[in-house]
Amino acid sequence: MENNSITQRRPSGKGFGGVNFSNGTEGMYPSSRKIYIGGKIHDIQVGMRQISLLDTVRVEGERKWAEPNPPVVVYDTSGAFSDPDAAIDISRGLPRLREAWVERRNDTEELKTFSSEYCNRRLGDRNLDGLRFPCLHLPRRAKEGKSISQMYYARQGIITPEMEYVAIRENLQNEELGIDSHITPEFVRGEMAAGRAVIPANINHPEAEPMIIGSRFLVKINTNIGNSALSSDISDEVEKAVWSCKWGGDTLMDLSTGANIHETREWIIRNMPVPVGTVPLYQTLEKVNGVIAELNWEVYRDTLIEQCEQGVDYFTIHAGLLRSSLPLVKGRTTGIVSRGGSIIANWMQRHGEENFFYTHFDDICEILARYDVAVSLGDGLRPGCIKDANDAAQFAELSVLGELTAKAWKHNVQVLIEGPGHVPMNMIKANMEEEIRHCHNAPFYTLGPLTTDIAPGYDHITSAIGAAQIAWYGTAMICYVTPKEHLGLPDREDVRAGVIAYKIAAHAADLAKGHPGAQVRDDALSRARFDFRWRDQFNLSLDPEKALEYYKAGHTGDQSDHCTMCGPHFCAMKLSKECISG
Amino acid sequence: MENNSITQRRPSGKGFGGVNFSNGTEGMYPSSRKIYIGGKIHDIQVGMRQISLLDTVRVEGERKWAEPNPPVVVYDTSGAFSDPDAAIDISRGLPRLREAWVERRNDTEELKTFSSEYCNRRLGDRNLDGLRFPCLHLPRRAKEGKSISQMYYARQGIITPEMEYVAIRENLQNEELGIDSHITPEFVRGEMAAGRAVIPANINHPEAEPMIIGSRFLVKINTNIGNSALSSDISDEVEKAVWSCKWGGDTLMDLSTGANIHETREWIIRNMPVPVGTVPLYQTLEKVNGVIAELNWEVYRDTLIEQCEQGVDYFTIHAGLLRSSLPLVKGRTTGIVSRGGSIIANWMQRHGEENFFYTHFDDICEILARYDVAVSLGDGLRPGCIKDANDAAQFAELSVLGELTAKAWKHNVQVLIEGPGHVPMNMIKANMEEEIRHCHNAPFYTLGPLTTDIAPGYDHITSAIGAAQIAWYGTAMICYVTPKEHLGLPDREDVRAGVIAYKIAAHAADLAKGHPGAQVRDDALSRARFDFRWRDQFNLSLDPEKALEYYKAGHTGDQSDHCTMCGPHFCAMKLSKECISG
Repeated sequence: MENNSITQRRPSGKGFGGVNFSNGTEGMYPSSRKIYIGGKIHDIQVGMRQISLLDTVRVEGERKWAEPNPPVVVYDTSGAFSDPDAAIDISRGLPRLREAWVERRNDTEELKTFSSEYCNRRLGDRNLDGLRFPCLHLPRRAKEGKSISQMYYARQGIITPEMEYVAIRENLQNEELGIDSHITPEFVRGEMAAGRAVIPANINHPEAEPMIIGSRFLVKINTNIGNSALSSDISDEVEKAVWSCKWGGDTLMDLSTGANIHETREWIIRNMPVPVGTVPLYQTLEKVNGVIAELNWEVYRDTLIEQCEQGVDYFTIHAGLLRSSLPLVKGRTTGIVSRGGSIIANWMQRHGEENFFYTHFDDICEILARYDVAVSLGDGLRPGCIKDANDAAQFAELSVLGELTAKAWKHNVQVLIEGPGHVPMNMIKANMEEEIRHCHNAPFYTLGPLTTDIAPGYDHITSAIGAAQIAWYGTAMICYVTPKEHLGLPDREDVRAGVIAYKIAAHAADLAKGHPGAQVRDDALSRARFDFRWRDQFNLSLDPEKALEYYKAGHTGDQSDHCTMCGPHFCAMKLSKECISG
Repeated sequence: MENNSITQRRPSGKGFGGVNFSNGTEGMYPSSRKIYIGGKIHDIQVGMRQISLLDTVRVEGERKWAEPNPPVVVYDTSGAFSDPDAAIDISRGLPRLREAWVERRNDTEELKTFSSEYCNRRLGDRNLDGLRFPCLHLPRRAKEGKSISQMYYARQGIITPEMEYVAIRENLQNEELGIDSHITPEFVRGEMAAGRAVIPANINHPEAEPMIIGSRFLVKINTNIGNSALSSDISDEVEKAVWSCKWGGDTLMDLSTGANIHETREWIIRNMPVPVGTVPLYQTLEKVNGVIAELNWEVYRDTLIEQCEQGVDYFTIHAGLLRSSLPLVKGRTTGIVSRGGSIIANWMQRHGEENFFYTHFDDICEILARYDVAVSLGDGLRPGCIKDANDAAQFAELSVLGELTAKAWKHNVQVLIEGPGHVPMNMIKANMEEEIRHCHNAPFYTLGPLTTDIAPGYDHITSAIGAAQIAWYGTAMICYVTPKEHLGLPDREDVRAGVIAYKIAAHAADLAKGHPGAQVRDDALSRARFDFRWRDQFNLSLDPEKALEYYKAGHTGDQSDHCTMCGPHFCAMKLSKECISG
């Protein structure tokens, strides 16, 4: 690969690319403070964001009084970055929250050295010193013969700190508000044992705060970042990663295909409060200089181990795309649009052999099980256009993914199932139903789907429509799409636009599914709107900065009881107030 | 009202606000030309936009050849503005396309003067000369005892030029492509006769190109513009109106509440190739100086006549909000959020009388019938937040709207039914079902709905999710929401963002409903994508400028066979091509 043209900047700790959460104000959400809710079973502290509100001013004749509004607690993906008391140093990484929990279980051991040959080669390369994350930790691995996955513990009837953590996290302030919730630590354990939910929690990524992906929990969103051979550098990628967590990304996939993937990933993982996923095939292909024919199990295996020991929490593996499915692709309009899928399809065709992810799937699971890395079974044959939706190729692969799910679960490896892609609205439900039918209720994780092909530049919207719908039907995690989809790599503002569009889709689905307490935020914001508590309306929104910016653009004086949309005489809510009290 | 602070600019014909479509290139869509398809029954020419495409280059071994791609015809709402042969002069207005059709029916007459007292007063006011549209046409009205609405003709078994026009328009190039379509002129007539579709076509707005709103036709989008007392002037509003047609707005509501509503409206209507709607109550309230108690039937009646004779094609009238529904509002979180609804509710409460739109509904219909103005029955009690969705207040009003629908149809007045608002996804279907149940299949016209309250600044997205869904269920027209909703008046870029989001929602619904030929554009764009015909991909998209802009942002050299997302070695579609041909 020709990477010479790429400038590499090493991230610096101070004033980090404008995403400095650490001073407690800059980058923080307004009127928000970090709170921690303690566990009842385990000694854990679950970080959340509490938004304080203004009083409602009531007037009745001469009398005027203030009624306090209770603060609203919202789910927080920004980790220590939004804690003014946390000492943030990008070059040291985040606090290792789960390290003690893992150690306490006494079923893992710290290795003396890294197990991946490639990793050791990179560590020995003096030329990389300037790029390398300065504060390496030795890797940890399951002791011989030990099962250490969250799924395994759940099946044993054990409620781990991770499980209690997510149970608290999913409930926000439900207990305080007296909202009935089915989500207890024992409920979490049950969902985990059944394979209906996943807690991505590589023992080598103790910086990540536990989160759960399952259809009976809050819908999660994944964000993708990653450099390609053509652009982006380490600093940009780390910055985008932190930025995506600020706006609400629940997990992050590093899809880098360019230079210094190993080093970039180390910087990212050490600073990520959310689980990190990858497609290990991308790096594997880099290792064989982009020559698909030279891909082989040994170099892939070493890559898996390399990434397991760095702390990647889930791997996308395109193990369901079999030779027998390739003829089904011939009639398609856009062929294979999954990068991983197209690479392995080419490999199979060149070698005349079956997909080695499939033939080595037990070996793969054995590796993943030792670190509790989840497998996200890739949909190499997802449709890339409306015309190709729900075709025989796609569903043939899905049925193989079901077979692989059962196999992974035998190894106690947690499983996600990836889904499309481009699908018209009337065909979305069938995707969810087929997934459930074939894949034993393993959580579904979809890219959109985009509900039309005709809006490049706006595919965060074409896909938010489909994502909201499929999430309502039961998809557990939706992978964001930015406005740059199909056109180029997203920049910071694209990441923000993509994350917010997907937070909207996820929240719309949470409301539609009746997730306990999800509507508390909507209700609080709407009360603020009706009270003309503008600041509260902004502060309760997904993007307070944008709301304030738009408001200011039209603000021309005192607007405490109306806005520029209707002017003072025509404000419906103002009139409505008079009407209700009158 | 205090309007002194408002600067009024009179629009000029040349170089009109940057939206100059008239020189045939600036503002035009790239690689597009205006085509006209002739009628078979009537002497009509239906304007459409034809996008020409590049050849696909095929390579097989040494052989290399080009395969032509047929042009794609798309629905065009920009009228003469996109016809380089049309002489555009904003101060003269658009060509009066339907004038001859109306005259030929010989059931209307040109009046000697305007019938509205207010209109005549404004015409006599010399101070307004500088603002006034310079090229007035005398109004036309049904001859005594004649019915002249498109619904009436349809019921008589008559296929009007308007009906044939929309039949051709809805089919795009289906005949040429051999796509089976149920949409014939006779089918249009049947839908019109049954009240299941509306062709808004005031005889005094002959500049508008006929379009149809009904669940068995393409989903339409309405855009709102309008000044308020706080901002905006005539020039801005006309410019925004033309701009919204450029991007694909099918109808336009002028919701002005500020100064010079009458004159602004004249400029807009004379230059609008799409039907124009209003809420006559807004202007009526201006006429009584914003004092709700002083609203009365006489001044409202004069306003209806004033606007009928200017050429407004449909009126939103909140006639279904009855006194008996007011107590149902008391428990709501956001009360009444419809401006019209809140005004009439206040009026009822002050006077202790029933809604005069309801008590005078027959009188209203008699007026509207003489100009073929459609009534859009307003949902004064639409929910303004998730909490208030589908409540007793909303559905009580809906059932009154059904009663009024039957009454309007007796007068041959065409009817639209307005719908919410804020509704979580799981409650959207009930809205469509209740509308059908109560309102005899009259076309449903909804504002969004917004599927969550928590994203001010992004409500074009929260609502596009709901709009796509409800349109798929059968809503005929969706009223756009811009990013500034709840925060301020939209500017040009907000209008564009809102229109595109709603074009996406509408098209997603068209695909889901299987509208004949709707997928042709998706398929052509996806083939272009797979062929790396970048320009074709952009030109076929809803917003070619934006797509090109985003592409260029990441473009770093020759990208004929890959893009910046994946780089040259990892492009799935490139690999897929090798795979399919290999």
